[in-house]
Amino acid sequence: MGVGAAVVTRAADTSPTEPPSGLPTVVLASASPARRAVLQAAGIDPVVLVSGVDEDAVASGLGDATPHEVVVALATAKAQAVAAEFVDHYPDAVVIGCDSMLHLEGALLGKPHTPEEARRRWTAMAGRTGDLLTGHAVVRVIDGASAGTVAGVCGTAVRFGTPTPAELDAYISTGEPLAVAGAFTIDGLGGWFVDGVDGDPSSVVGISLPLTRRLLADHGLAVTDLWTRP
Amino acid sequence: MGVGAAVVTRAADTSPTEPPSGLPTVVLASASPARRAVLQAAGIDPVVLVSGVDEDAVASGLGDATPHEVVVALATAKAQAVAAEFVDHYPDAVVIGCDSMLHLEGALLGKPHTPEEARRRWTAMAGRTGDLLTGHAVVRVIDGASAGTVAGVCGTAVRFGTPTPAELDAYISTGEPLAVAGAFTIDGLGGWFVDGVDGDPSSVVGISLPLTRRLLADHGLAVTDLWTRP
Repeated sequence: MGVGAAVVTRAADTSPTEPPSGLPTVVLASASPARRAVLQAAGIDPVVLVSGVDEDAVASGLGDATPHEVVVALATAKAQAVAAEFVDHYPDAVVIGCDSMLHLEGALLGKPHTPEEARRRWTAMAGRTGDLLTGHAVVRVIDGASAGTVAGVCGTAVRFGTPTPAELDAYISTGEPLAVAGAFTIDGLGGWFVDGVDGDPSSVVGISLPLTRRLLADHGLAVTDLWTRP
Repeated sequence: MGVGAAVVTRAADTSPTEPPSGLPTVVLASASPARRAVLQAAGIDPVVLVSGVDEDAVASGLGDATPHEVVVALATAKAQAVAAEFVDHYPDAVVIGCDSMLHLEGALLGKPHTPEEARRRWTAMAGRTGDLLTGHAVVRVIDGASAGTVAGVCGTAVRFGTPTPAELDAYISTGEPLAVAGAFTIDGLGGWFVDGVDGDPSSVVGISLPLTRRLLADHGLAVTDLWTRP
């Protein structure tokens, strides 16, 4: 995510302007491979388009917003930026924006980026419970123009286990926790060290399927109509 | 699962009798592709070996066992059968057995197998909460002999959403719910229709990573030592 050129990864045999079925193109406004994998496993192979939203500028412009408001605002900014930028290429589309952060003891935590910060995080997280917040916004594009945005937020409690010092060393040395919000995954190596969640597990991976289903329904779309398999 | 020939799917360049690292071979005593995928995503690429345990005979021999006892007994039977059958091929191994069932309003539910039964299940499940029980047993094989079995159970509450009639038709027509315990997934198409869980999400997919980590620790093994990546 963040600043970068657009990434288009839909299969080359699909026309970018005419969805084969007459249904809207599903656009994922996120470079996260985990989000894309969740959607693909759940029957939707999205176009991936990433726009250069300045997340820090959006967040600092929010003043004293609640954590829920922050992730919804960031998801909305990303979805609307991608919808605006690519409206000519995908004139009939739904654009899904996402933002995830871990809320732990008053702090809102994104990616740790460095081994040192990942270790600090895990030292604070181990044996405790955090709240993984995932904001989603879905922009409906019809006839080459935005026809509205709906948004929502999903909070899932995450009960962290307690890795031994050797396990934590091994986990950090893989690099996985550095690049993910909250310094953990549940669908990768981090899954060994998460004792449980209370909420939607797909939201912890990065895209809440039940919330996305409800937002699509708000636009009058049944998610099953968007399935590309089988 | 059930009766069938053994399936060996480890990479051909790995000697079946000498783990390259001096560490035990990890054997998954289950044909479930979802369980194998969870382990692979979590850093372990197991040998898959399936033995012909008569699950109905094991279950009916248990008398009035609790649901927890049933899934632990079935997981133990599967792991011990595979360990006994393949002890010569994998003289230094950990053999992981698994069994999953959905406990809903007093009934213990496995795979529905037919569209009619899947529809009955979902009609009963929609909007309700069930308990997905996952039993695991880990047999340690050392020097070509069993060195003991440890076992445990993990119960995760699953809050089912309410698919529309058209969504339920579409879901059942995919065939996915017919072949899985409880007639749903959270890591596939079913994820749209599960509003949340309370417990370990990997146990719902079929193999609980934190429980498996604890059972391996009971055998004196750190899961991170068994990681094959990175």
